[in-house]
Amino acid sequence: MPLIIAERNAYTGQEQIWIKYIVHLALVKHQVMQEITFQIKYSEYESIAHLPEKDNVLLMKARETAKNAYAPYSGFRVGAAVQLGNGVIVTGNNQENAAYPSGICAERTALFYASAQYPHIPIIALAISTLNGTATPSGVAKPCGACRQVMAEYEDLAGKPLRIILDSFDKVLVLNGIDSLLPLRFKKEDVK
Amino acid sequence: MPLIIAERNAYTGQEQIWIKYIVHLALVKHQVMQEITFQIKYSEYESIAHLPEKDNVLLMKARETAKNAYAPYSGFRVGAAVQLGNGVIVTGNNQENAAYPSGICAERTALFYASAQYPHIPIIALAISTLNGTATPSGVAKPCGACRQVMAEYEDLAGKPLRIILDSFDKVLVLNGIDSLLPLRFKKEDVK
Amino acid sequence: MPLIIAERNAYTGQEQIWIKYIVHLALVKHQVMQEITFQIKYSEYESIAHLPEKDNVLLMKARETAKNAYAPYSGFRVGAAVQLGNGVIVTGNNQENAAYPSGICAERTALFYASAQYPHIPIIALAISTLNGTATPSGVAKPCGACRQVMAEYEDLAGKPLRIILDSFDKVLVLNGIDSLLPLRFKKEDVK
Amino acid sequence: MPLIIAERNAYTGQEQIWIKYIVHLALVKHQVMQEITFQIKYSEYESIAHLPEKDNVLLMKARETAKNAYAPYSGFRVGAAVQLGNGVIVTGNNQENAAYPSGICAERTALFYASAQYPHIPIIALAISTLNGTATPSGVAKPCGACRQVMAEYEDLAGKPLRIILDSFDKVLVLNGIDSLLPLRFKKEDVK
Repeated sequence: MPLIIAERNAYTGQEQIWIKYIVHLALVKHQVMQEITFQIKYSEYESIAHLPEKDNVLLMKARETAKNAYAPYSGFRVGAAVQLGNGVIVTGNNQENAAYPSGICAERTALFYASAQYPHIPIIALAISTLNGTATPSGVAKPCGACRQVMAEYEDLAGKPLRIILDSFDKVLVLNGIDSLLPLRFKKEDVK
Repeated sequence: MPLIIAERNAYTGQEQIWIKYIVHLALVKHQVMQEITFQIKYSEYESIAHLPEKDNVLLMKARETAKNAYAPYSGFRVGAAVQLGNGVIVTGNNQENAAYPSGICAERTALFYASAQYPHIPIIALAISTLNGTATPSGVAKPCGACRQVMAEYEDLAGKPLRIILDSFDKVLVLNGIDSLLPLRFKKEDVK
Repeated sequence: MPLIIAERNAYTGQEQIWIKYIVHLALVKHQVMQEITFQIKYSEYESIAHLPEKDNVLLMKARETAKNAYAPYSGFRVGAAVQLGNGVIVTGNNQENAAYPSGICAERTALFYASAQYPHIPIIALAISTLNGTATPSGVAKPCGACRQVMAEYEDLAGKPLRIILDSFDKVLVLNGIDSLLPLRFKKEDVK
Repeated sequence: MPLIIAERNAYTGQEQIWIKYIVHLALVKHQVMQEITFQIKYSEYESIAHLPEKDNVLLMKARETAKNAYAPYSGFRVGAAVQLGNGVIVTGNNQENAAYPSGICAERTALFYASAQYPHIPIIALAISTLNGTATPSGVAKPCGACRQVMAEYEDLAGKPLRIILDSFDKVLVLNGIDSLLPLRFKKEDVK
């Protein structure tokens, strides 16, 4: 049976209408097993110009910060901008090291500093951009697994889904919550 | 329109019948944006006893190895077992450090060593188990983001989906491919 | 023969007189080998009150920042303050993660952010403090190996020895250059 | 006053004679501060051929393992060999990742696996080699800070100094104990 949902996004103020109809059945022979499916959803914007205002501002900060990355080993420059609940934006970029594993990604530079300076303020959004050559964004900026793990920790602290904005040269992806990037994730409660 | 699929899993030899019917529409007002959805699927087995033979063997190795973890700081012991394409199984467990970030998870202990010793052999499956107290598996063993990033690197090298087996005290989850745990992931091709 | 040196520290403006007399011989039988010795030197101040003014200010910032650390897993709170060549001070504290290896130390939180924001300004000093309970510094704050590796990268970029100030409840240690904490270190030139 | 020491190295069986004479005085004006000096000592062998037999065997294993490193991003290949108290040797090499910080060094690949497999056996020696081109060792193989932190953890577990053998194309360095590479180090006892 179709499900019709009209929702207003509290963050962007945009109205959306959904018509959803899903039937999913799996019959499996010879074993006590069931197939489980879950969905991951994201919004794809044609360009940064079409983004909601707040996302646009945050992403522009991420792009700007990418230029200052310290990436002498990979030549790959990434910028990140974190939106805090108190209106403050904290930026960061990747910082490499001659011993590769001792370097850090842009996302973590920004997230760690944001949490260090504003320990009780929720982190509500994160924009990421990677630069191709001097100034143009390259392919979709996709956070590495370790950064996702760190994003998850702060989302849990904030108590609500982290808005994630991923830049690219021809479109912008927006995700709602780290579960979209780290399904079945390891949590605080798992350390017992 | 429903989709009926009868498939035989090449790895486990089991036959499955699928009836799938999905309609998904999103109408979004006022902006040049589209909602994109993708699905993540995994199998949930009632217990280790119901797992295909090869998975069962691998998971038992992971459970066994967890007992030897060096986890004086968290008390949280995890074991991992890697199945290589040549039949060899390599195990590992978590190895902590007084400086927390310098420790490592079970999955990476096993994966790094497996690749170091068998550089041209594909890594085809990974089983993970966490112990509660002395010997019983605890909640679902979920790899952290950094481990997923490493799993992805070796899946790309192998050229086919990594089979992932996650233990728990009351069921076992099986996933096919790291994309299920790290959607929209950062890849080799992204470093340019 | 004794060596008498009167030197004025360019950073603190203090005058020091040294009388040094070292003879070191190693005779080794039966092999083509020589023993090599080098010295590591640091200053031990009776308390923060006796530190040169600039060091005192930096260390107080580190102590202050430690209070805001996010350390729910270890309960161990550390603060760091970075002095930049342009007069700016950047602070950071440790930021832990449920997946222990994905957390970060105070020193790196501050260093990565400082370099991300001021890419062409030399990092000239770093103060570190660890808190015991609410507010008193605990034992000597000693950076972990990974943080030392990162300190080394930025010292090389700055082109002059990093001044390192380590707090404790009863004295303060001051070192001149990361070589004192990471002898025979791995450098940029080693990656070839 | 000179100090004359004749010592027999328990590990290599070699006899050494030392004549040591050190006077060190620091007079510092205007402040309650004292200069403290400590020494770091290592042996430099003309070539691998002059190494004690056990060290030679271990280092050859490290060289051999370096060839299998997975280093598509840096092209820099490193090998490590760990000597356990029960006679077993465990080897490892560097394993890189498209997300640079998620890779690992040779030393840790070997150390983590060794401890994972032999939890109660002391780790007593570690040899490291880096390859230049196909087969010749390059400059002195110097472990990064993070690897030193991990070496320290296992030295503490073993309860005696870790013997460290660093290869190069024209000489071999041997150090006795991680304190030589990580002075004033952060220890287990510091986490309180």
